[in-house]
Amino acid sequence: MTSSSGFRVPDFSNVQAAADDLRGQAVETPLLESPLVNARLGGRLLVKAEVLQRTGSFKFRGAFNRLSWLTDDERAAGVVAFSSGNHAQGVAHAAALLGVPATIVMPRDAPPLKIENTRAYGAEVVLYDRKTENREAIGEALAAERGLTLVRPYDDPDVIAGQGTVALEVVEQARLKDLHLDAFLVPCGGGGLTAGCALALAEESPDTALFTVEPEGYDDTARSLAGGQRVENDMSVDSVCDALLAPTPGELTFGINTCLVSGGLAVDEAAVFRAMATAFKDYKIVVEPGGAVALAAVLSGAFDVRDKTVAVVCSGGNVAPDLFARALAAAGEG
Amino acid sequence: MTSSSGFRVPDFSNVQAAADDLRGQAVETPLLESPLVNARLGGRLLVKAEVLQRTGSFKFRGAFNRLSWLTDDERAAGVVAFSSGNHAQGVAHAAALLGVPATIVMPRDAPPLKIENTRAYGAEVVLYDRKTENREAIGEALAAERGLTLVRPYDDPDVIAGQGTVALEVVEQARLKDLHLDAFLVPCGGGGLTAGCALALAEESPDTALFTVEPEGYDDTARSLAGGQRVENDMSVDSVCDALLAPTPGELTFGINTCLVSGGLAVDEAAVFRAMATAFKDYKIVVEPGGAVALAAVLSGAFDVRDKTVAVVCSGGNVAPDLFARALAAAGEG
Repeated sequence: MTSSSGFRVPDFSNVQAAADDLRGQAVETPLLESPLVNARLGGRLLVKAEVLQRTGSFKFRGAFNRLSWLTDDERAAGVVAFSSGNHAQGVAHAAALLGVPATIVMPRDAPPLKIENTRAYGAEVVLYDRKTENREAIGEALAAERGLTLVRPYDDPDVIAGQGTVALEVVEQARLKDLHLDAFLVPCGGGGLTAGCALALAEESPDTALFTVEPEGYDDTARSLAGGQRVENDMSVDSVCDALLAPTPGELTFGINTCLVSGGLAVDEAAVFRAMATAFKDYKIVVEPGGAVALAAVLSGAFDVRDKTVAVVCSGGNVAPDLFARALAAAGEG
Repeated sequence: MTSSSGFRVPDFSNVQAAADDLRGQAVETPLLESPLVNARLGGRLLVKAEVLQRTGSFKFRGAFNRLSWLTDDERAAGVVAFSSGNHAQGVAHAAALLGVPATIVMPRDAPPLKIENTRAYGAEVVLYDRKTENREAIGEALAAERGLTLVRPYDDPDVIAGQGTVALEVVEQARLKDLHLDAFLVPCGGGGLTAGCALALAEESPDTALFTVEPEGYDDTARSLAGGQRVENDMSVDSVCDALLAPTPGELTFGINTCLVSGGLAVDEAAVFRAMATAFKDYKIVVEPGGAVALAAVLSGAFDVRDKTVAVVCSGGNVAPDLFARALAAAGEG
């Protein structure tokens, strides 16, 4: 099946195939619990610690799965991606593991550590000026010039299928605890993690309600789901959740999510900082702002866990130390 | 077998029995790796993330195992422990899970969060004045008066056996990666974790060298191992590693460790802070100062990992946010 603009639409079999590909490559990240938080919430909260994934976010899953389906010629030529964040590192590391040359187009003013890490994973980094140059144009020119395959961050069936393995694991880990999931909440940017998890849950846990969580001001998916069509964010709004600032839901991802997602929630910065502090204090994991929004929805009461079993994905942990310290202090923990 | 002062000396069969007891109760914590850190060190570093254990430290293992061996009468009467830290929370939570009343003797000036958490786990907290009262006397009086069983933090065969399950898991997790451990480094206070891991390694991975790591100024185990007899620390020295400030090696633990440990290392505060920052940045886990000393030994070069496969235990993550922020800043990451 293909979407109206020619994307191949992934299905559950692609998620299963991705799980096979990722076995022994991706980390089966733990599903954490805190008896103290459970007692405070009056429910059972399961935290999928995807911050412990290779490269510090779930993005490795989709990137590795996408790259593992390249033809021999495509592998030899290499791949290109543009991202200043988690997708860049995911693609760079997956490419290194598979012996595929990778070029990552990053803004010259990206955090030095992210540029350094992307290089350390073995990728060639091409810097551009965010104000005067267009990264898509640079990426497409590189792709055309060098015959590279462009690895999109979410509007790609194999990327979506890879991200869906997060939900496959959660359902299985919950089963081992004899738990059935009433709800599943995921941080949402372009919607790739959501779409993959939606495909997995529809098959493996069909009565689990799936919700997206976004930062206040960037709730394009929530509004698009409510209105039945893709709407855009005002990109001039500031947000600390740098990982979730896609301008609009992906075309392929929204086509899946509009059928399978129960609804969209949004959380403000204070709730995000409190969630990061709780992750620090009660779960002992480092979560970046964008990775903490689903946990924030539960802790803030935006989603009520009382008498329910609910899983949230903490999707990434690539946060600068000063911002992390600021979050702990703002949450009254510093 | 019993020690000269009447302690029963545990053996490998006790560690195996503890593993059975703890199945489904303790978290099988993940063994983390970072390709970037491995590349920097030129070796293979495996990080046992015991910060993800219930109550945020390995202490839950020994406490739960100890309590699971109580007789019915002992269970009904309850237990008592004195600790301002991780052992308190481990005993409190294990007792709650097993339906055993727990009394924890804590200093009145302990961090409010630790007192609050110990109560939240369901224990009765008895506060004492560190300057004018003696906690051992209070604990023993309570034990005599109420018929409580005293749960010691390390000089107890069932506590030692429980802590040894950490090494059992690491050896098995390394095997699943087809890795053989050249060395195994553990943070050391009274020596319970060390002794338990020593029993497990001697049986399951006998050519793995075991090293203790202590904070500078509190290297009583290193000096005792070198000299062949138990020596004391100068307790007036300041150290940020509050979890590791035992006055001298335990009697039972030292009897085991002097036979099975290859040697002892010590690290300074700067190395500890850098290790906490690396745990934050490269492994995405929250590690307290005392829990980070083994990682610090490897990262500082005190123990050389080049061309080796080495496991370190990050043993606890119960650290105040302001101290954590200070560590990140001191390590040049803040």
